[in-house]
Amino acid sequence: MKRVRFRDSAGNVRGGRWAIEDGEPVVTAAAGPYGRIAFGDESYDPGEVDILPPCEPTKIVCLGRNYADHAEEMGSDIPERPMLFLKGPNAVASHGNKLTMPAGKERIDYEAELGVVIGEQCKNVSEADALDVVAGYTCVNDISNRDDQNREQNWVRGKAFDNACPIGPMVATPEHVPEDATIECRVNGETKQSSSRDNLIFPVEELIAEITEYMTLEPGDVIATGTPAGVGPLEDGDQVEVEIEGIGTLEHSVKMP
Amino acid sequence: MKRVRFRDSAGNVRGGRWAIEDGEPVVTAAAGPYGRIAFGDESYDPGEVDILPPCEPTKIVCLGRNYADHAEEMGSDIPERPMLFLKGPNAVASHGNKLTMPAGKERIDYEAELGVVIGEQCKNVSEADALDVVAGYTCVNDISNRDDQNREQNWVRGKAFDNACPIGPMVATPEHVPEDATIECRVNGETKQSSSRDNLIFPVEELIAEITEYMTLEPGDVIATGTPAGVGPLEDGDQVEVEIEGIGTLEHSVKMP
Repeated sequence: MKRVRFRDSAGNVRGGRWAIEDGEPVVTAAAGPYGRIAFGDESYDPGEVDILPPCEPTKIVCLGRNYADHAEEMGSDIPERPMLFLKGPNAVASHGNKLTMPAGKERIDYEAELGVVIGEQCKNVSEADALDVVAGYTCVNDISNRDDQNREQNWVRGKAFDNACPIGPMVATPEHVPEDATIECRVNGETKQSSSRDNLIFPVEELIAEITEYMTLEPGDVIATGTPAGVGPLEDGDQVEVEIEGIGTLEHSVKMP
Repeated sequence: MKRVRFRDSAGNVRGGRWAIEDGEPVVTAAAGPYGRIAFGDESYDPGEVDILPPCEPTKIVCLGRNYADHAEEMGSDIPERPMLFLKGPNAVASHGNKLTMPAGKERIDYEAELGVVIGEQCKNVSEADALDVVAGYTCVNDISNRDDQNREQNWVRGKAFDNACPIGPMVATPEHVPEDATIECRVNGETKQSSSRDNLIFPVEELIAEITEYMTLEPGDVIATGTPAGVGPLEDGDQVEVEIEGIGTLEHSVKMP
């Protein structure tokens, strides 16, 4: 199943399913341009409703340097244990929007990532049990303001600004997302990042165990699992797509004031 | 006015006022042992209800090195601009409880701080308008797990673990809290930190302007303004008090597993 949240034409927030075929709600292998949203007896064209973030995280726990090729391109060592940082709910943004970035920055980068969406409140979860608390997976762009990130100990101005975390458009339940799911980022149609989930240095189970050793995760919280090589700067008006096999494609553009 | 949240004996969450005298809700200069909680026609002894965190932050934006004497004791320079880090809602804990700390750590420190509680959703607030978005002030203990803080770029394990941010017990409206309000931390009755609000390197107005240049603040969000000199380790069972002039005293103990 692929769950979406959206605002219908009457202004009500609904939780629906992506996609429908021949009048019956069914799950397609990947959400393509022909997907529709099913809710109750209605079906909606995704372009005719406001797609909302598919979950409402109380926090986004993010990973730095969780792909060896990205650590190398940043001139950094591979970390000994998962490198964590935080974004707050203010950073969340949704599919299909033009997102205003912080003003006057030299370099703001895209970073395509697999997002793990938590399904239940949990603490001290073992690696063996970790996948039981996963509601599904979504696409994340961990947008990074390098001007400030490079000047601060904790990446707050650099990573936790408003709109720094577009997610969506759907949460795909785990059976859709293979162990080696491809993760791709395109900017204005050109492929910039291409990797797969099995290149994660610390896999999802280890991340959940490590994070919940320290903090409670809540339903809807997101773990952004890190980005592969190929990060680069965004320009005003750029169209970004983060496509993950088995989930779908998160699309947004950016406004650089 | 001093606002509290509490759970009454029937299990309902209430928003009340701290303190009452002669049967009339009035504001006392500082919440002392004789304070009571007023709600509707009832008045409650604070010891007979569960005091909850006085607000429900979506994020806590914290300051590092915002007192010169603390920067010096940590062997750090005074920062050129506010040094920010984040705690999520999972870190929040309330007055009057025994708080379990992360297991097996060598050093977990208390850090008494003035907390600014935001009253309205805001972005890009000027210093001149900053105090208009302040609902009031509360007491914060920015509990810090040095074992992990010293090993990580972003202070997530070090500062954002469950129970790392006791706040309360009340939010005092701004007129109660003088510009030079004293801030004190006592452990088992012994004074460990003693400073005042006018020693903040970056005052509240500058912090709000700087933070909201990057992110939206929501009602109930807290800015933890940094700690003065005198930080030190906590032992199992220690009783901590954070007292701020014009607000009151946050009390809790710690369990070191």
